[in-house]
Amino acid sequence: MSAKVGVIMGSKSDWDTMKLACDVLEELQIPYEKKVVSAHRTPDLMFEYAETAAERGLKVIIAGAGGAAHLPGMVAAKTVLPVIGVPVKSSNLSGLDSLLSIVQMPGGIPVATVAIGNAGGTNAGLLAAQMLGAFDPDIQARVIARRERVKQEVLESSETL
Amino acid sequence: MSAKVGVIMGSKSDWDTMKLACDVLEELQIPYEKKVVSAHRTPDLMFEYAETAAERGLKVIIAGAGGAAHLPGMVAAKTVLPVIGVPVKSSNLSGLDSLLSIVQMPGGIPVATVAIGNAGGTNAGLLAAQMLGAFDPDIQARVIARRERVKQEVLESSETL
Amino acid sequence: MSAKVGVIMGSKSDWDTMKLACDVLEELQIPYEKKVVSAHRTPDLMFEYAETAAERGLKVIIAGAGGAAHLPGMVAAKTVLPVIGVPVKSSNLSGLDSLLSIVQMPGGIPVATVAIGNAGGTNAGLLAAQMLGAFDPDIQARVIARRERVKQEVLESSETL
Amino acid sequence: MSAKVGVIMGSKSDWDTMKLACDVLEELQIPYEKKVVSAHRTPDLMFEYAETAAERGLKVIIAGAGGAAHLPGMVAAKTVLPVIGVPVKSSNLSGLDSLLSIVQMPGGIPVATVAIGNAGGTNAGLLAAQMLGAFDPDIQARVIARRERVKQEVLESSETL
Amino acid sequence: MSAKVGVIMGSKSDWDTMKLACDVLEELQIPYEKKVVSAHRTPDLMFEYAETAAERGLKVIIAGAGGAAHLPGMVAAKTVLPVIGVPVKSSNLSGLDSLLSIVQMPGGIPVATVAIGNAGGTNAGLLAAQMLGAFDPDIQARVIARRERVKQEVLESSETL
Amino acid sequence: MSAKVGVIMGSKSDWDTMKLACDVLEELQIPYEKKVVSAHRTPDLMFEYAETAAERGLKVIIAGAGGAAHLPGMVAAKTVLPVIGVPVKSSNLSGLDSLLSIVQMPGGIPVATVAIGNAGGTNAGLLAAQMLGAFDPDIQARVIARRERVKQEVLESSETL
Amino acid sequence: MSAKVGVIMGSKSDWDTMKLACDVLEELQIPYEKKVVSAHRTPDLMFEYAETAAERGLKVIIAGAGGAAHLPGMVAAKTVLPVIGVPVKSSNLSGLDSLLSIVQMPGGIPVATVAIGNAGGTNAGLLAAQMLGAFDPDIQARVIARRERVKQEVLESSETL
Amino acid sequence: MSAKVGVIMGSKSDWDTMKLACDVLEELQIPYEKKVVSAHRTPDLMFEYAETAAERGLKVIIAGAGGAAHLPGMVAAKTVLPVIGVPVKSSNLSGLDSLLSIVQMPGGIPVATVAIGNAGGTNAGLLAAQMLGAFDPDIQARVIARRERVKQEVLESSETL
Repeated sequence: MSAKVGVIMGSKSDWDTMKLACDVLEELQIPYEKKVVSAHRTPDLMFEYAETAAERGLKVIIAGAGGAAHLPGMVAAKTVLPVIGVPVKSSNLSGLDSLLSIVQMPGGIPVATVAIGNAGGTNAGLLAAQMLGAFDPDIQARVIARRERVKQEVLESSETL
Repeated sequence: MSAKVGVIMGSKSDWDTMKLACDVLEELQIPYEKKVVSAHRTPDLMFEYAETAAERGLKVIIAGAGGAAHLPGMVAAKTVLPVIGVPVKSSNLSGLDSLLSIVQMPGGIPVATVAIGNAGGTNAGLLAAQMLGAFDPDIQARVIARRERVKQEVLESSETL
Repeated sequence: MSAKVGVIMGSKSDWDTMKLACDVLEELQIPYEKKVVSAHRTPDLMFEYAETAAERGLKVIIAGAGGAAHLPGMVAAKTVLPVIGVPVKSSNLSGLDSLLSIVQMPGGIPVATVAIGNAGGTNAGLLAAQMLGAFDPDIQARVIARRERVKQEVLESSETL
Repeated sequence: MSAKVGVIMGSKSDWDTMKLACDVLEELQIPYEKKVVSAHRTPDLMFEYAETAAERGLKVIIAGAGGAAHLPGMVAAKTVLPVIGVPVKSSNLSGLDSLLSIVQMPGGIPVATVAIGNAGGTNAGLLAAQMLGAFDPDIQARVIARRERVKQEVLESSETL
Repeated sequence: MSAKVGVIMGSKSDWDTMKLACDVLEELQIPYEKKVVSAHRTPDLMFEYAETAAERGLKVIIAGAGGAAHLPGMVAAKTVLPVIGVPVKSSNLSGLDSLLSIVQMPGGIPVATVAIGNAGGTNAGLLAAQMLGAFDPDIQARVIARRERVKQEVLESSETL
Repeated sequence: MSAKVGVIMGSKSDWDTMKLACDVLEELQIPYEKKVVSAHRTPDLMFEYAETAAERGLKVIIAGAGGAAHLPGMVAAKTVLPVIGVPVKSSNLSGLDSLLSIVQMPGGIPVATVAIGNAGGTNAGLLAAQMLGAFDPDIQARVIARRERVKQEVLESSETL
Repeated sequence: MSAKVGVIMGSKSDWDTMKLACDVLEELQIPYEKKVVSAHRTPDLMFEYAETAAERGLKVIIAGAGGAAHLPGMVAAKTVLPVIGVPVKSSNLSGLDSLLSIVQMPGGIPVATVAIGNAGGTNAGLLAAQMLGAFDPDIQARVIARRERVKQEVLESSETL
Repeated sequence: MSAKVGVIMGSKSDWDTMKLACDVLEELQIPYEKKVVSAHRTPDLMFEYAETAAERGLKVIIAGAGGAAHLPGMVAAKTVLPVIGVPVKSSNLSGLDSLLSIVQMPGGIPVATVAIGNAGGTNAGLLAAQMLGAFDPDIQARVIARRERVKQEVLESSETL
């Protein structure tokens, strides 16, 4: 089945965080593709990727980057698919620079920004699933089931304090 | 036609920002509803709103709040619809508190966060439209047309420097 | 004797910090209960916990959480007992996000916020004891005795520079 | 009836914020006293105020200050009554300095910190009322009634969007 | 004479700041061109501008933008001319977001970042002049003369304290 | 010879930083005393220390503390000797809270604040020496000699790049 | 009588803040001189000023600057007199840049930093007076008298709440 | 061949970062010199270095420093060559202090600031090369070739996710 979600990242060093998004998509049986696409080092590839995303059947793009993180916003400028931005933790400013570079988009081109780092990686996968789930009852059912499982884990963890 | 997008805000004082989301939805002919729902002052209403959102036909929820902004995250905890969070500019910390309270969600419950203040208001409407547009060619076409108009405005503005 | 203080936390990973509050309550012989209650993963349990807290005999609630920390504020929205919020240190922003998410509550629903991390854990226990101590001379006497002990430790530590 | 709550502030310029705490206490019929007590300009008065607070019948102290705000923490060091700290908005750093100076107390001496500025002023009054209300059903009932009123105002405000 | 410096900005609203760069270039008799080029609203124009800059005879590009300011970094990714980035003051975070979005570029693609706002506008013009001046004694002489004038103004201003 | 400089710190855990101030004082042959004096845990001792400092022959006080660091400012409120404040690095906010708590004193009571952490420890000793040196040629000569030594070390270090 | 304190500032626009230091010095009858000396625009004058300060009889230098504020630290590098740094409020970052540029000096060259803006201006004058007062009983007596007056003002202000 | 680029740093401890600039210059066959020059500990050497830089044939200066980083700005004040500033990561504030001390220069004296830490070290070398390359086709060709190599590495890294 063709990919519904494109997961891209600015550098292979972002993979630890972005893998968490892929893990969620696999767990929820959502077909996806993954690729390193750098805004600054492969700008033409980035534009081509964004421009052809919709026609290739993608419904959502997840883009992760750190520091002066331009990938999510620039992809968003070149597609009308919703783009989820993951601020990868940066080595000096702990991802505050990544967050502001992604979330503070000017009126006209939105990026759906999630949390800095690993929580953001996981949540990017879930947010994509929820966007698809709004139009696909099977996916939505799997999101609901996952939440129920997580809830049980929380309840059980309380016993072990 | 029944509302596809629910626009809620923690206080009537958030209306100036949230109206911009409604303006975009109207411009793009997307049916929506709007309501003041306070996480802290009307918590039961908030839970009821979130729990019934999917069955009432909503596909996306836009939630705006300022300061210790709990509305977007708590609504997200009670629905599997995608929730867009708008950090409203706060009087003392310029919305940095709103932003961190909304975006830094733990793994499991994502909020699609947009920019602080008015840019975020406009972009919340556009992001909702893009989510719907991924499954509705008419809406997507209107988003594309809007972008084209904005592009022309930029090009023309250059003449007047 | 039934619990006077409820100690809750958003995740079992907050236990290292929240245990310090429990340690103080035990040292001061104040009966308490402890539980993992997640605002985002067990929202209904959270509401039920807060709603029934007063009738179950609690006089104060201590709630710890990290990141977009909504637990203290949402519990405060559902009870008129005083709620003490502990900003747990977060992995990326060192607890600044936790702090702002807890302390910047809008007018109407206060949270008594203490310091980020371990100092906050200890002080949450002490603050609860001081609230109870204002109406219970025995507890107040134990708080005074504890302060005297700590003072002696400071004085002695000076000898060893 | 003798004062149950002491409201102090580091400078007369803090009065606009601290008056909001007094307004809430009056509305909830809680006897209080108010005074300018400066940690830096009247340090002996501050110590004397804190040392005698409990014996004079106070149950809670509300202390507001801005900048390098030492008043709440130093009063807390000299009494075992619970102390609520209000970070007054400062002229240059918007109260971030006030907040950190008040909330980041070391383990041993807690300050119950509320939001920066006016929201904090109002919430300091409410938090004091909730502390008293945990042991006084009449006060607690008035807090509940106030919340109900505020809730109705929120619901009505929604009609006027 | 053909333009040596290209001055571009993400929005016409950046003109007040960017005009200061143009003023300096005029004062120092350096031919330049100016244009609104938006990374997000006219991305293809941006790429074309950057790709053709060197062959059109430009030696330096000055790019100003605010918020999630991607223009300087993306232009830098598409040209090997030196790019000077001006962080325009943003409405909510005072340009801190603009600064971090511009300066925190990953290794491989530098942006020569100057101060936030008006000081940055002026200094971008001067920095471009100094880059050219290192290879053009006439321009360098005019930079030196300007500094001498400014020095005299400082010395005279001291008389009027 | 009686102590000219008093070195105090809020906790024994500040000793690593404050020892650097003592090292400089020893190196420059300036008599000093050292003590743990906690603003929050030994407030009366702090007041007594500050009140008697001048009559005991001290000319400068160096006070180090972390977090909500009240020691330097409160000592300054109780003496007219110059007080040097050292913001000790805090465990969660890296000393930014310590710095703002010390430096942002209200008009009327100054604290001479130095850098966060170890650089501040060393510089506190040097600053005290420079204050004394302005009135004592021998001390001033030793400060000058120390600078000369440090300068030579810098020059030599360049050879080893 | 020859100047004991040199008050310098990086720009005439700093005068509003630095005048407050001069006002205090006049009030306390301490002879001073004042001058605009810019680190960046008159660097040679700055070095000459600092190098000759001690021999001209100055005992303390007060230096105010904003933004990337290098004046206090560079003057401190060229004299062994104590240097007080005043972080002038900057137009974009509210003086946080000024503060960090002044206070975060490396080990070896201290700057006695006071608060951002007007409080810092006043306190710079007082700190200089306290440094002199440690060796001059008349000045110290005037500082004590000023504190007493301020204390009375605080006490009286309390009557007017 | 005589040096075209001068690489200086405030302390030998900055060498790890500044070595990356030198590595790039070597890779691109650009002659350079390197030296420890401290603004605060060798101020006269710094002035002499900056004053003679142009006549010695340098075309660009790269200056790295941390904390209250005055070296880049002060060198810029004493030469009309373009100066690139590298904010070295500081031990307490992660280089945010270094960044603001370097980038926030007042109008009149620009510093071309690059990213904090290692990315900045590498990019300083590249920026210098790009400035030279605008007037030297051989250098520009080597910069283009390096970019092509980096692009291939990104493309290949994508295969290994």
